[in-house]
This record gives sequence, structure tokens and C-alpha cells, in this order.
Amino acid sequence: MSAPSEYLLWSHAELDEIRQQRSADNAMGRSLAALEVRVTASLARGVVIPGQGEAGSFEHNTHKENARLIEGAALLGRLDDDTRALDHAHELLAGYAACYREMPYQVARNTNPPGKLFHQILNEHIWLLHASLGLALLKPTLSEAQYQTLLEGLFRPMLEMFTETYRHDFDRIHNHGLWSVAAVGICALVIDSPSHLAISIDGLDGTGETGGFLAQIALLFSPQGYYVEGPYYHRFAIHPLCLFAEALVRHCPERNILEHAQGRIGKSLNVLLSSAYPDGRFPALNDASRTMNLDDEGARCAMALLAARYDAPSELLTLARQQAGCWIQANGVVLMRAMREVSHEAEVRSQLFHDGPEGNSGGHAHLKRGKGLAAQHAVLTAGQHGMGHGHFDELGLTFFSRGKEVLKEYGFARWVNVETKFGGRYLKENEGYAKQSVAHNLVVVDMQSQHDGDHALADTQHGNVALLDGCAAGARAQCDNAYENVAMQRKVLLLESHHTETPLLVDIISLQSEQPHVYDYTFNHGGQVIRWWDGEFTALAAWEVMGNSAGYQHLWKTGQLTADTAHSMTWLDGDSFHSWHQITQAPADVFELRVGANDPQHNLRPDAKVMTRLTATTQTFYNLFESHGHFNEALEQCGGARPEVISFTTLPSPDGVTVLELTFSTGQLVLVLTDPSLLPALHELEIGEQYYRIDQEVMLLER
Amino acid sequence: MSAPSEYLLWSHAELDEIRQQRSADNAMGRSLAALEVRVTASLARGVVIPGQGEAGSFEHNTHKENARLIEGAALLGRLDDDTRALDHAHELLAGYAACYREMPYQVARNTNPPGKLFHQILNEHIWLLHASLGLALLKPTLSEAQYQTLLEGLFRPMLEMFTETYRHDFDRIHNHGLWSVAAVGICALVIDSPSHLAISIDGLDGTGETGGFLAQIALLFSPQGYYVEGPYYHRFAIHPLCLFAEALVRHCPERNILEHAQGRIGKSLNVLLSSAYPDGRFPALNDASRTMNLDDEGARCAMALLAARYDAPSELLTLARQQAGCWIQANGVVLMRAMREVSHEAEVRSQLFHDGPEGNSGGHAHLKRGKGLAAQHAVLTAGQHGMGHGHFDELGLTFFSRGKEVLKEYGFARWVNVETKFGGRYLKENEGYAKQSVAHNLVVVDMQSQHDGDHALADTQHGNVALLDGCAAGARAQCDNAYENVAMQRKVLLLESHHTETPLLVDIISLQSEQPHVYDYTFNHGGQVIRWWDGEFTALAAWEVMGNSAGYQHLWKTGQLTADTAHSMTWLDGDSFHSWHQITQAPADVFELRVGANDPQHNLRPDAKVMTRLTATTQTFYNLFESHGHFNEALEQCGGARPEVISFTTLPSPDGVTVLELTFSTGQLVLVLTDPSLLPALHELEIGEQYYRIDQEVMLLER
Repeated sequence: MSAPSEYLLWSHAELDEIRQQRSADNAMGRSLAALEVRVTASLARGVVIPGQGEAGSFEHNTHKENARLIEGAALLGRLDDDTRALDHAHELLAGYAACYREMPYQVARNTNPPGKLFHQILNEHIWLLHASLGLALLKPTLSEAQYQTLLEGLFRPMLEMFTETYRHDFDRIHNHGLWSVAAVGICALVIDSPSHLAISIDGLDGTGETGGFLAQIALLFSPQGYYVEGPYYHRFAIHPLCLFAEALVRHCPERNILEHAQGRIGKSLNVLLSSAYPDGRFPALNDASRTMNLDDEGARCAMALLAARYDAPSELLTLARQQAGCWIQANGVVLMRAMREVSHEAEVRSQLFHDGPEGNSGGHAHLKRGKGLAAQHAVLTAGQHGMGHGHFDELGLTFFSRGKEVLKEYGFARWVNVETKFGGRYLKENEGYAKQSVAHNLVVVDMQSQHDGDHALADTQHGNVALLDGCAAGARAQCDNAYENVAMQRKVLLLESHHTETPLLVDIISLQSEQPHVYDYTFNHGGQVIRWWDGEFTALAAWEVMGNSAGYQHLWKTGQLTADTAHSMTWLDGDSFHSWHQITQAPADVFELRVGANDPQHNLRPDAKVMTRLTATTQTFYNLFESHGHFNEALEQCGGARPEVISFTTLPSPDGVTVLELTFSTGQLVLVLTDPSLLPALHELEIGEQYYRIDQEVMLLER
Repeated sequence: MSAPSEYLLWSHAELDEIRQQRSADNAMGRSLAALEVRVTASLARGVVIPGQGEAGSFEHNTHKENARLIEGAALLGRLDDDTRALDHAHELLAGYAACYREMPYQVARNTNPPGKLFHQILNEHIWLLHASLGLALLKPTLSEAQYQTLLEGLFRPMLEMFTETYRHDFDRIHNHGLWSVAAVGICALVIDSPSHLAISIDGLDGTGETGGFLAQIALLFSPQGYYVEGPYYHRFAIHPLCLFAEALVRHCPERNILEHAQGRIGKSLNVLLSSAYPDGRFPALNDASRTMNLDDEGARCAMALLAARYDAPSELLTLARQQAGCWIQANGVVLMRAMREVSHEAEVRSQLFHDGPEGNSGGHAHLKRGKGLAAQHAVLTAGQHGMGHGHFDELGLTFFSRGKEVLKEYGFARWVNVETKFGGRYLKENEGYAKQSVAHNLVVVDMQSQHDGDHALADTQHGNVALLDGCAAGARAQCDNAYENVAMQRKVLLLESHHTETPLLVDIISLQSEQPHVYDYTFNHGGQVIRWWDGEFTALAAWEVMGNSAGYQHLWKTGQLTADTAHSMTWLDGDSFHSWHQITQAPADVFELRVGANDPQHNLRPDAKVMTRLTATTQTFYNLFESHGHFNEALEQCGGARPEVISFTTLPSPDGVTVLELTFSTGQLVLVLTDPSLLPALHELEIGEQYYRIDQEVMLLER
């Protein structure tokens, strides 16, 4: 790919290759067909350039779509040598060039400075980026007069706004900053403005340390490639990253951008794509929608760039099948070819992503088992807080099994671009509930959120996490700073054995303190509760609000069980049953909860939760989750509605060693978890009447 | 098809034709592939004949599956000339023949007499039917000794149980009765027992009037083909109907079964298949699951029989695309061919199905607009009660639009075959909530169910319904007997115009009485409430139970609006917005409700409802439902989140005439509904300052 790229990201020869995918039955073929439909519709409609409007309004949506149409029509025009499409792209640009200078600024709706087309400048950056790619495709056949009109009316004023008017904001290290530098940099490459290109790469001070693309890459991503705000914003940040990186590879090869910061771009692609669940959705960590997935434009570019510029692991090429479309660019063609060569579904593998610019601010363990849609994926999170989009969820757990998220993230409280929901912006229940600790799958201490719910404090601290030895999918995490004088530790494992059809999730969470505290173990589940197996469940005659603050004010208590040290419940979610078994050392109350109290504007979803509460100084919650059986309501077929685990108990063990006994109709398993520091001294362990040699952190014994 | 059918429902020549579909990319090809997988797995597993168990248990499921395997392995054996598969089918039969006589009876779990393999005889009938079809396929190559062993050990004792032991039950007119006569009749044809064949057709008294197949057909189905219990049980009853009818066509042509009772079989196929929503699901009228669909075995047979033995309308052949599989029989081959010839999606059309054996016990209006999955389908129900499975839902309404049920039926309270939910049987909340009037989309009077919630009373009465003139999709229904001294009338229309992307649903429901009553207009919706447009919504600080009986004891009140004569609310369900606008003559309170109070066993789903309440003697609720906009959360695209209807009002009009004015950003529509008896006298109507000529029951005027 050292051939000239006449159209910035596309060369003549590459357009020929893309054209050959036109009727292919693959993601590229579908994207090309979709592009043709959109451009044809726009040609039929004609140029529409509306005034200013709210997020989610017709005006907002039309401006957004117009930028994409400028790029899309120009690209289709080049692919098909179609003058009508090229003219359409030019007319759209000319329409904006005719009015942009005189257009007033919008009113700011949040902390983001306002643009002219949009109420936040971020959208204007995105607009410029697409429009610049369109201009790159059009430029070779524009007359000088046409070109100058576009430059003076549109591109120069935009650059001026971004780099002069909002100069104070240009170097900000943030996902918005990435869009800003990529838009300015790509525009600069197209219109040949070396000064703008320089600041977009090296920042305003020219050092590459405090602003510009180089600094954004080095500071926003950990050395391993993890993005501080989590997957939802990662896929958003990676879009300009991919586009600007590809442009620099082609036009500034001397910058060696792919090698920058120990090859951080490639690592970041890997982390983003590896963090997706088997169905292509991203775990909704921090502020995030529950449906964002690999079909996002950014993720499409990431997958294509990884396939073309790196050695993409076959696990990710398998996952690429969850993408309906593909980046219409030479890298996308390479991806299509690479996918053809991966004939069967690759086994997934567990990974640990270190967080922080130095890679020493905790991290995130992605534990995986299995293949394809049947694979399991658990995330144990103990990294940085995630800045303004962070949730108070150190040691939080999410879990995907049998095609669904079983331990659910709530995600954000927001309907993006839904005008009738506060203009599509973040709702106050996002702070009020979604970010609070109790919204997550973890233990809440004294009904307060971690770090007192203080973002600034949380941003200065982090947990730690490591993979467990002796287990293909296990991790332990700890955090001693989320609550004053309470140390938290969590161990999570996916256990494979011949006793169950699907691996089991073992979840052990320990709290140590010298003072007594209220500990609330809580998890979010979907579907319908089928049955509580032990104790007496009471449905409340009137629902009660759980508290006044830290998210508890938004929780209804709907039912409860008598206090006990063992609890077990089965629920049905779609076509699969799931069961939860818990053992505590002291008796715990169990509550069924539902989200939605104190929500007159219907900003919350009425999701179901379970909470176990006890008061103790030091306490461990031993949990086991299993997916079992099947139910097809339409065919009225059902099997395995009862848990496969008949009993789940702890056995006596020395300090630093946990011994769990799991009984099935087919036999028994004993799981021994040993503090690694004890291993050299510990030789044998007596379990029941037998002695076992213990030489690994995790040992799974058959009995 | 007058060739010999050597294997009862299959001839040599037909098996050849089926074989040619083996790798076809159609429903038959998929069914053949699935059959091969099942039989191969069973061959690998070997013959497993367990003891007795509960519904949903391993034993129950295995017996059920074994009957299907006997038929399936025998059929695959004949198709492939595969001795192993044929032997497997024979071994299964021989296994049962070895133990059946000595097997004790099960314990009865409901009003159904117990069988030996199953706790209700119904399952044993189904078992015999499949096993008999298997025997028909095996018989030509069995030795006389083998054949006699099967007869004596299995088939004769089963026939004896069904026709002697349970002789008192054999003539019962019921869906179970249809299975009984079809099983006995088909077995009689296979083993050549004229006496059993005679009673299965003509009943025990030989008249064909009180029992047997002929009487079942004439009494269970209305002359137009409607089945008294509704679609869910219709598709269940139609399965033996199709099989036995096909057998009689082939082996007793002199019976002219397809002409029996004015061709009721064909009409019944038509009604069943026409009642399915565009996505293939059946509206969950009366006791029904919400997921039962055209892929049910009975519906598959019905579609194939209709295509092969009748002229199937192209609307139904289009709908057949919702079937993943197909009846593996010659009729299925004909269906596959017929579907190929329907190249485009046919326009749906509204239909009225009269209820009752004489066709004069009310009926059910199916109102439809559009094509394919985008079609709309509303059902206005005013027929018979539906015997033991009936719901108290006269003048109930269901509505499907944009790929989803918008006005939802609750369906039954039951998890079929889920052992851990009361053995898969009907739950007490089925009577307690699901059947009660308030569970449906209608007006409840004085917080009581229709007919005092008395099934016996309800079975003696019915409403009436007719299609409206002057409208492709409109109906009016009335019922004066559901509540003492209250006359109810409902008019429902799907309005198409250039003002909205999707047709509007107009729903006008009137109550007349001389005494004041509490009227509760109620509907069930999915998704998430986005916004109330008028009035002040208050979320309750503590949820309250709505009442003590008639289903109200299972409803939570979660929020309310100030009393007013106009209400409007938008909700989001998946990718579409829906809005409801209501006008009442007197101020009405509005409540948001949620199902699930007083349900300690989690037998109810926490569905959302809206209720409007007022007290009046005579009152009309004018309602308008619209589907609008679109939302793709994953792509973060949204448009049209606000209702397209800007205002909805009634205009002054003479008695017997309703005038509704609908205002859009694009103009105004006036809907004039006139009592047909007034039409001859009514010449012109002044609306605003204009005069309109009124000559039809429904007139839609542009302004």
C-alpha cells in the first residue's frame, strides 16, 4: 500500500478492488449496497440544508446526515465514475459554504462549547472530518474557483473556529480532543495546510507531549491499549484515531504513527475488539448504552485497520462476523479476505488489560470460555474511574453466558438523540442512579457509593487485578480505597467440568474491616424469577423505597426472604434458566428489588435486582451462578429447569485457603483457592478424609 | 393424488418427490435436515424407555419425543431406504409393546383422566397418533410375528383404554376429543379395524351427530371455520384434524370429508392461518401463550393442506414465509411449489369470522392494512366465551403494528412444560388475573369482570360484530349482556392517509346505562413510557394495590395524572415510538399500573398498563393510537420522537354521528362515523363552515 492515495484514504487502484466487492455476500457488499440506497435517496430528495435545532431534531439529524452524505456521495461517485453523485456531494458542500460564515453560534447546552450547526462543538468536529474526506474525493475534479469557494466559505472558518476561537480547548486530552485533532489534521492534509497539520499532530506547543494526536494517544490509552472511559467511549474515540492514523500512514510515513508510544494504536484496537461480548455488544461499563456493538462505525474501522495493518488474531476475525457492515476502504477489503480464511470458530482466551497512562493504575480482567455465540465472558473491573463518565464500580462484575448478559450492567440513564428525552442528553438519574455503586454487581458498604460518590476523589485512585494461576479463566481483584477502613477482595472464575453443560461462574467477595458495616451484595438480572429454593419468600404488600441517597432512593423493595446463611434462586431469561447460590458466614436478609422509585419522568428502566444484606466487620460472600436447561415457549419444549448444582458449601480450611464443595447428580467437585504466598509452604490439604497435594493457586478436584 | 398410499399418508412416488427436496433451501429442506439430525442423535443414544414422571420431567419429555422418533425414524428410513433407521423405529415400538400392558396408570393431576405414559390421557392420544403413523411406514416390512407383538402389546391395549376404559369420554366435543378420534381412527386404518374406524368417524352411536370426527368438525368450528377456544387451541386442534382428514381423503374417499359440513375443514384452515399476525405469531386470545406461531406442527400441516387441497390465497402463501419448517408429506411439497410462484408480498385484507356452531354467536373482526412484516393487524373480539379456556374479554382489542404487538394481550398464566412452575400446568393466577376483564384492552365496569367472572354464564352469551362500510379496515361490535344494564359498543378503524407514515388506530368505546358506574378504560403496552404530554404526572411514593378481586388484586398503581378530559402519552418499544391520545366527555383520572401485586410465587409477568377511570351513566372514550418515528439505540439514530398528531378533538354533531378532527403539521383530517340507519335521511353535515355530503358509514375528509 505504498501506491499514491489520490483521494487521501483511497487510491484509484484500491477503488477498483472495492468495486469488485459490489455484489459480494459479505459485510463490504452490504455496506456498498446501503451506501447506494442512501445516496440514491438523497439525490431524489435534493439538497436540504436546514437551520439550527436541538439534539435529535430534524435540523440536527439532517446536518449530521449531510456530512456523511458528502463523503458517501463523493465516494460512490468515484467508485461508479458517477458525475451526478459527485455533483451532489459538491452541491451539499457549496450549500454549507454559502451560509456557514454568517451563521450565528448555537446556544450551549452543556459544558461543551457551542458550534454553529450543532449545540456542541464535538458534532462540528465530526462534521468537518466527514466533509474533509468528501472534499478529498472531489478535489481532483473541482475547478479552482469551486475549490476556493469551499475553502473560504466553509473549511477555513471551521478550522479557525476550532484552532483559534476555541484554541484553549484544542489541546484537551479527551475523546472530544481526538475528534478535534483528527478533523483538523485530515482537513489540513486535504487543503494542504502544514501549520494546521503540525498542531494537530504535535499540539499547540509543538512538543507532542501536552496536546495533538501524539499526546492524545499516549495519555488516553494505557500502554496495553485500554481506554480510560471504557468500551463505549473507546469505540467512539477509536473512529477518528483510525482515520487519522490511516491518513498519516499514507501521507506522512516518516511519522511512523503505528509505532508511536510502543505501538499503542494497534494495542488499542486489540483491547477494544477483545472487550466485546460474543454477540458483538460491548459490556456497558461506565456511561454506556447496553446496545452499542461492533457494528458501530468506529469499531468497523478498528476491525479493518487491525486486519490490514496488523496480525489480527483469529478469535477477533471470528467476532467480525457480528459486523453487518464494513469500512468502505482498502483495509475493509483486506478484512473480508482475512475472514474467508478463518474457517471455524476460534476458541476465546482470557485477557487482562492494564489501565492508566503508565499501565499501573489497576485494570480489567476479561475472563472467557468457549466458542462463538455460546462463549462465556465475564469482566472484573478494578481500574481507573473513567473521568466524568466514570461509574463508582470498583470490583464490579458483568457476565455474559448463553447469548445474553446474565449479570447485567445498567448502563447510562440517557436516550441518545431522543429529542423528547431532555434533548438526548444525560438525564439527572445518570448521576442519581446509574453511576452509583448500588446500580452495579458488587458489594455496597453502608449504603454509600464508593469514594463517597466523588468523581474527583475517585479519579485519583484505583484498584488492582491479576489473573489467577492454574485456571484458564480466573482473576482476583482488590481495592482498599473505595471505602475508608474497608478492604475489598473479589475472586471470579469460570469453571469447566463434565458435570455441567455450561461452565459455572464462581464469585467470592470478601470485606475486611475492624468496625461493623452494612454489606449489600447486589446483582442485576433479567427475565422472570421462577423460584426461591430455600427459605420463605414474602412479596411486600406495599413497595418500599430502599433509601434516600446513593441510588437507593431509586430502588423499590418488592419482596424479601427470612435471614439465612444459604440462598438459592432460579430465573428464566428467554430460552435459558440461570440459578444463583449464595453462602454467607452470618445470616443475611435477601431482598428483591426493582429500579424506578422517585422517577416521575420515567427516566429509569424497571430492571430487576437481588440484594443480600448483613452487618459484619469481616465477611465473605460465596456465590455460584449457573446457566442450565432450555425453554422454547413457542414449541412448548422444556428441560433442565432445576439447577444442576444440588449443593454448594464451604469446607473447613486453613487461613488463606478457600475450599468449596459442589455436588451434582453426577458427582462432586472441590475447588481449592490458595493465597499464592502460602503455596511454597503448603504441601497437602485434608479434605474429607483424603489428602490432596496443593501446588497451584486454583485447583479443581474431582471426588 | 389418487395413487395408492402404501404408507397411509405417503406413497412410494411421493417419497421420491420429498427426497428431491433434501437439500433445497426452503422449509422442507430445513425440516428434512432437522429430522436427520434428530434421528441420527437417537440412533447414537440408542433406545431409551424410561418410567413415569411429571409434566416437564425427563420421563415425560422422553416418552413424548419417542413417539415422534417412531414416526420420524420410520419416515427417514423409508426416504433413505435405511434399514438402521427402520429398525430403530421398530425397536422403540417393540420396547413399548414389551411393557405397556403391565404399566400402572399414572396419578391424575387435573380433570383429565390419567394415561400410563402421561398423567393426562390427551398426551397418550398424541402418542398413539404418531406411533400409528410410524407403524404405517414400518408395516410392509415387518414379519407377521413382529407385527402381532406390537398389536397385542401396544396398539390394542391403547385402543382399548381409549374406547372402552374411557368410553364415557370418547364422544366429548373438545380439542382433546379431536385428538382422541384422530388417534383411534388413524390407528384403525393402519391395523385395519373397521369397528374402531367407524366410531372414530361417526361416534359411538353411529349417527355422526354427537361424537366422532364428523360431529367434532361440525360442533367445534363455526360454519365459517372459527374455532371456539381461539387461535392457540385452534392450531392445537387442527393438527389431528389435518392428519385424519388427509388419511380419509386417501383411504375413504367415499366419505368426502373435505365437503363435510359445508367444507368446514378448508374454512377452518383459512381462519387459523388468517388470524396470525404478520410475524407469524397468533394473537393470544383466551388461554394462550404469547409466542405460539405458524411454526407449530399443527399450523405447518394446516398451511400444507390448504396449499395442496384448496386454492390458498397469496396473502397466506406470503405468510408461510414465517414458517421455518414444513410438514414432511406430499402436501408440503405442493406448498413449497406454490410459495415459489408468489413472487411479491401480497396486500392483506380485513376479515370477519363468525363464531358458534350455527355461525350466529357473534364473531371476531380481523382488521388489516399493508404488506409483509410492516402490515398492521387489529382484532376486535365479540364472539363466544371459549369454554374452560375463555377469557372475560368481550369487545377486547389487540393491535399489531411495526412488527410488534402494540396493544398487548397478557395471554395465560402458565409456563407450559416447565416442571418447576407447578408441573407446567395452569397457575392459579390464570383465573386470578389472566382471564379477568381488567387483564385485557377494554373498559371494565365497576371493577368487576364481565358476566360476573362466571364461565358457565359467559358460555351462554355472546356479543356481535360487523365490518364497517366505507373503510377497508373498520369494525363495530356491541355487547349488552356482559354487565347488567350496561350496553357497550366499540368501533375500531385503521386510518390510512398521507399525513402519517403508518396508519392510525381509532378506537371509540361507548357505555350506556341509566345508573352511574365506574368505567375503567385500560390497555397493556410494552417498552418504556417516554412522556405524558398533558397534565401533571405523579409517581407514587408507595405502590398501592388496585383492589381485592376480579384481577385488580394483582395490579399495582404506580402513578397517576390529574383528572382531565384529554390525555396523551408516548412510549418507546424497541425501534418505534407509539402514542396514545384520549378524549373523554367527563374528566377522567389516569393511572399507570403494573401487573404483579399479591404474587409471592412470581407467577405473573410485571407488564405495564394504563387505565383511565371516570364515573358516569353514559360515556364515550375516544382514543387514537399512532406508531411514529424510529430509534436505533446501537446506531444512536432517532427521528420522529414526537407524535404526528398535533391535536385530536371531537366536533359537535347530531345524535348517531361522530365527528373527529385530527390535526397534523401537514393538514387536517375529519373522520365522520354515522349510524347506518341514519344514512338515508342524512344528506349534508356542516363541519366548521363547510358542508359535506355524508353517504357512507365511514367517511374520511381532508381539510
